[in-house]
Amino acid sequence: MTLSEISTPAALIDHARMMRNITRMQQRMTALGVRLRPHVKTSKCIEVAKRQTAAGAHGITVSTLKEAEQFFAAGFVDVLYAVCISPGKLDRALALRHRGCALTVLVDSVAAAEAAVNKGRAEAHAFDVMIEVDADGHRSGVKPDDSALISIGRLLQDGGASLKGVMAHAGSSYELDTPDALERLAELERSRCARAAERLRAAGLPCPEVSVGSTPTALSAKHLDSVTEVRAGVYVFFDLVMANMGVCTPQDVALSVLTTVIGHQAEKGWAIVDAGWMAMNRDRGTQRQRIDYGYGAVCDAAGRPIDDFVLSGANQEHGIVSRRDGTIEPSILERFPLGTQLRILPNHACATGTQFPEYHAVAPHGAVQTWRRFHGW
Amino acid sequence: MTLSEISTPAALIDHARMMRNITRMQQRMTALGVRLRPHVKTSKCIEVAKRQTAAGAHGITVSTLKEAEQFFAAGFVDVLYAVCISPGKLDRALALRHRGCALTVLVDSVAAAEAAVNKGRAEAHAFDVMIEVDADGHRSGVKPDDSALISIGRLLQDGGASLKGVMAHAGSSYELDTPDALERLAELERSRCARAAERLRAAGLPCPEVSVGSTPTALSAKHLDSVTEVRAGVYVFFDLVMANMGVCTPQDVALSVLTTVIGHQAEKGWAIVDAGWMAMNRDRGTQRQRIDYGYGAVCDAAGRPIDDFVLSGANQEHGIVSRRDGTIEPSILERFPLGTQLRILPNHACATGTQFPEYHAVAPHGAVQTWRRFHGW
Repeated sequence: MTLSEISTPAALIDHARMMRNITRMQQRMTALGVRLRPHVKTSKCIEVAKRQTAAGAHGITVSTLKEAEQFFAAGFVDVLYAVCISPGKLDRALALRHRGCALTVLVDSVAAAEAAVNKGRAEAHAFDVMIEVDADGHRSGVKPDDSALISIGRLLQDGGASLKGVMAHAGSSYELDTPDALERLAELERSRCARAAERLRAAGLPCPEVSVGSTPTALSAKHLDSVTEVRAGVYVFFDLVMANMGVCTPQDVALSVLTTVIGHQAEKGWAIVDAGWMAMNRDRGTQRQRIDYGYGAVCDAAGRPIDDFVLSGANQEHGIVSRRDGTIEPSILERFPLGTQLRILPNHACATGTQFPEYHAVAPHGAVQTWRRFHGW
Repeated sequence: MTLSEISTPAALIDHARMMRNITRMQQRMTALGVRLRPHVKTSKCIEVAKRQTAAGAHGITVSTLKEAEQFFAAGFVDVLYAVCISPGKLDRALALRHRGCALTVLVDSVAAAEAAVNKGRAEAHAFDVMIEVDADGHRSGVKPDDSALISIGRLLQDGGASLKGVMAHAGSSYELDTPDALERLAELERSRCARAAERLRAAGLPCPEVSVGSTPTALSAKHLDSVTEVRAGVYVFFDLVMANMGVCTPQDVALSVLTTVIGHQAEKGWAIVDAGWMAMNRDRGTQRQRIDYGYGAVCDAAGRPIDDFVLSGANQEHGIVSRRDGTIEPSILERFPLGTQLRILPNHACATGTQFPEYHAVAPHGAVQTWRRFHGW
């Protein structure tokens, strides 16, 4: 298969770029002396995760039990479910563990820890459990100095669960765009998670793992003392949000949407393409960043950026290609004739990927492989 | 199956509300003397479309060839593909027609009409073709008084295609929120599309169909003289964007996301739920409307609105439930204990639905049926 045979819109992976991204992160983590546990919520694709593992990653991080089930079925055994588990999902987690999956679940409250302990007692099973630590007030987790941290740890330990450690995710990193600010946040994520581990150990509780991460903090940390593993997801593809933050360039973005010109509004300087928000996703993550790319940056079919064209508007199955500065391209018909294929780089790779049942992985010499991507919960 | 047995997040259809929405639109179209051709891009679900047909709809509208293929396989024969076709997709359209699908394709340029004519000649096949008319400068289409309209019509007719008529979609209706403005736009959509039909007929060309529509204009038109059919999609579920526009109320919204409380940040007045943007979609369509619902409006598990709680923030698999006015709910833990099920009404039903591989259709007495929804292109 070649590009021109692919029905558009389609999600393309630039294989060489992806491999560079995988290598870059793995080498950095190895140099910092920590294990890398990639977050597979970005790709939801076995073929992508296999390449991360082959490059040196240990285990995977997931955001849903379906991801755990799908990756376990493909041979990934060491799985961290990095979203606090609701009591109603413990049966499904237990089923995975009974089948041999080394699944670790997460809690950030006494109530959730009690539910895990009670389910474990009722089923004569010791869950592997980590405690989520709130590093930056972004979302969930217990604060490292909160008395609840020790209560949760003790409850798990006394209740027969296996306390695996602590994890933090500095999700507010996505709001930053300078190396200094990112480095400071990476240090906050590291130090607060390490502080929680120290407190648990000082209370006589086990805490073998100290897990931190997000792509921006992983790429910005000066050191990772006390940390045992780093989680990161979007680095495998990168995207325009990451480029605006300065942790990659648009030329590193490995995921794009292949689209076809289906019409024009010449007097407005528009080419209409068959990638709308259904293909790109509604994510407008670059809207308040340094460069607003609309719904994505326009490249030619080979992936080379085209001046300053963006997907300036999107309906469900229509996208509008026009100049980012709002000026009218006078020769839009000649530049992008009907049937022209273009690639659009996405704002947010995790969100764009999810719109597609498969990726088309494009090798440097142009050969295309189809890789399945799964969907739903 | 009952609600409490459903793994969250899940897409729920309130069956009684959906049936009311279907009946309301069908009765209005019948009263206005036009056929209704529902746009199935909203649901992408055979079970939903069957109920629209049973209520009196004629044919379906689709936004992708995959929709055409899937619905045709389920017995829907009369299909309008209402996105201008790229030359590269004519083979796939032809394959459908050879299998017996009465597929109509759309063009809005001489170049696209030429491609359809050339393909038809090469394959000794007469495509059914409509011409898209630009009613409101929103997206694609030829202007009703543009000389290109007649050129396209003549090219199709002389080239052996079957010229089925004209269609317009006043997509700018989504930016309006008063009955007067919507009624004026509905009249613009009608009159401009009718004008294009008149011009084609005056030039001696056939134009049996005059197809207009969007949910807001369909519900706002005073009369539909000269129109033969109306297309509308989102009315089947409605959503918060439509409620803000005044064409439905939040109590009409038939699609919601069932979610579970997985944690709290009590001092912030937050409950954390397992519906993030992966479940809701990134669509923030209410952001610049009358009421900004964040990522959705919070209801209890039975679908009753809860005061003024919204999904104020969303990460991939985390949502933040808090008060819409930004004040802190002091008893968030007691109001929404760990494990509580909630329903979130979506901003945009088409965008939220697409995140799910299936719907759970909930009957008034609580019984739940699972209906498949398809995905991709």
